[in-house]
Amino acid sequence: MTAGDDEREALRERAASLPAIRLSARTVSDLELLGNGGYSPLCGFMSRADYDSVVESMRLASGLPWPIPITLAVSDDESRGLKEGGEVALADEAGTVLAVLSLAERFTYDKRREAQAVYRTEEDAHPGVAAVYRQGEVLLSGPVRVIDLPPHDDYPAHRLTPAQTRAAFKERGWGTVVGFQTRNPVHRAHEYIQKCAMETVDGLLLHPLVGETKGDDIPADVRMRCYEVLLELYYPADRVLLSVNPAAMRYAGPREAIFHAIVRKNYGCTHFIVGRDHAGVGKYYGTYDAQRIFREFPDGELGITPMYFDHTFFCKRCAGMASAKTCPHEAADRVILSGTQVREMLKGGLLPPPEFTRPEVAEVLLKSMQERTTPRYAV
Amino acid sequence: MTAGDDEREALRERAASLPAIRLSARTVSDLELLGNGGYSPLCGFMSRADYDSVVESMRLASGLPWPIPITLAVSDDESRGLKEGGEVALADEAGTVLAVLSLAERFTYDKRREAQAVYRTEEDAHPGVAAVYRQGEVLLSGPVRVIDLPPHDDYPAHRLTPAQTRAAFKERGWGTVVGFQTRNPVHRAHEYIQKCAMETVDGLLLHPLVGETKGDDIPADVRMRCYEVLLELYYPADRVLLSVNPAAMRYAGPREAIFHAIVRKNYGCTHFIVGRDHAGVGKYYGTYDAQRIFREFPDGELGITPMYFDHTFFCKRCAGMASAKTCPHEAADRVILSGTQVREMLKGGLLPPPEFTRPEVAEVLLKSMQERTTPRYAV
Repeated sequence: MTAGDDEREALRERAASLPAIRLSARTVSDLELLGNGGYSPLCGFMSRADYDSVVESMRLASGLPWPIPITLAVSDDESRGLKEGGEVALADEAGTVLAVLSLAERFTYDKRREAQAVYRTEEDAHPGVAAVYRQGEVLLSGPVRVIDLPPHDDYPAHRLTPAQTRAAFKERGWGTVVGFQTRNPVHRAHEYIQKCAMETVDGLLLHPLVGETKGDDIPADVRMRCYEVLLELYYPADRVLLSVNPAAMRYAGPREAIFHAIVRKNYGCTHFIVGRDHAGVGKYYGTYDAQRIFREFPDGELGITPMYFDHTFFCKRCAGMASAKTCPHEAADRVILSGTQVREMLKGGLLPPPEFTRPEVAEVLLKSMQERTTPRYAV
Repeated sequence: MTAGDDEREALRERAASLPAIRLSARTVSDLELLGNGGYSPLCGFMSRADYDSVVESMRLASGLPWPIPITLAVSDDESRGLKEGGEVALADEAGTVLAVLSLAERFTYDKRREAQAVYRTEEDAHPGVAAVYRQGEVLLSGPVRVIDLPPHDDYPAHRLTPAQTRAAFKERGWGTVVGFQTRNPVHRAHEYIQKCAMETVDGLLLHPLVGETKGDDIPADVRMRCYEVLLELYYPADRVLLSVNPAAMRYAGPREAIFHAIVRKNYGCTHFIVGRDHAGVGKYYGTYDAQRIFREFPDGELGITPMYFDHTFFCKRCAGMASAKTCPHEAADRVILSGTQVREMLKGGLLPPPEFTRPEVAEVLLKSMQERTTPRYAV
């Protein structure tokens, strides 16, 4: 948790004389979510008992659901000299001290076991697995006191903490709120899914993930402009809140879907949208694995209701958006474009059809493509 | 409950020598639902204790939720000579004996109290209240053994009992099924609501009510043709089941919404759509009263999950269906027609726009209008 004002000063002074380690951008994201309550009930980086339990059974040692290890990995060199029972200053990549860790344990771990259990593969072609393989060999655990949440210059109006999103929902009188995770622009397929959900709940938290993603994802600033344009023109202002999730992507598919849901519960959502291939990458997970995994938790245990959606598209005969669950027509009636096709259109200066992307959103994408000499990301 | 084969023969013989009463079409509908399990856990017409409890607190004397009296009302004349503890043969309007009532109680009741509590008005301009005022002064209670479900010539393929709909859901592998109550043609607004719900559940039970309705509602046979055309052309066959609900309309608004939900639970639905003004008539109920009333039952008690929808329409700027919850545009962008406007169009031989009604459904309505010299019903 983040320290109060008095404690913060004391921590800052004390930290100056503590051994310090620099965290990767990924770990700074985790620190932010530990500090702002997004990772409740976690109070710090996981102990060996929690780590083992999470890897093996998707639960903390206490039995509470938690599917993804939240760990502080350091190299052997970095860990040398750190004492269990002592304190460690945690700094970002620029060297700014953000938090103090009360070092409870220092332990080694089996990366391949984590990869297999959490990511369902040991291949380093998987970006989440690669990140585990890249990180240090030693895990440090213990509660953290966050002095300052990591500083951000970008989209300060959309950097709400869980306490702030909850307060915003309350102020708007939303009894039910559906959370939507995304690391892509919102094309009409996702707008349709969000709106289907919105028809039966009070509000939508559009909660794009802006922590580290793989290099070919669209940059967060471009995505944010897309969201702003889309919400302004196509969503009622009193039914939607745009705020960012500072987490890094794991691409852990099913386990990450559970993780995304728990984090959104902490942000105040009552419902969470789980689409096809949620948080997946490559061919590592079955299309519906991220929906099926919710069955492993008894009804109500997660404290947030998943809403499952299928692949959606515009159908010319339906004269509207639909999915295979609601449209009986032929493939030829459906406007379906691959990411590659859309990228090619934009590269050629063409807007995707309005049945696929709202024209104003397409303009933002086209402009961002043209500003970069070589389009290098998926749309 | 409906008797087994052996019992049926014995009942039929015995009924021949019992005093018999003829039931109104409304009461025959109730008898059908008592016989086919649609009114589970009721085994017969309500006792005084159940009746009082239902009127006062929307619960049976046992405490189970039940919002609408299910009673057998007869005149003083008819009740004369019937003995508590004896049996009574129950016949339809044609005189065919359908069931045997074990007469437990015979009691008078306060129609105005029932009207006020159940319908929230004592005005006889309310069709549900008028039906109560029209019926007899004495209520007969007791379990019924149904010899034969009431015979029907119309749409036999769509006359599934609760056991049959449940079996159909199971056969199709539907774990979740949303029920849709209607006594109108399905225009695009309701198609959109159904499909929004279908996106997150496995299947839809389109369950039109075909028991007695007020005279200006569209005849059930015309509605059934509309449903068949619509489903054939716009719904995936493996995601929707069309079957009828033999119940009569009460127009009891909020209480009838709960009633409709409980009956659909008995038919095997896990979810039930509650729109604006559900089961309402005139200005007797607030727009959202039929949604709010569900809050009076603790979560999970009804055993079926309500899904609330707002008024929906085609919006030209959204280029799709939407509601005030999902569309930020002006009234001028929205295709909204009143029942009167649609009726006038059809009377003049015009089809309503495809944004309002699927053309193939509009054709059925137009044809049925033209077959009748004076269009006499709402659309």
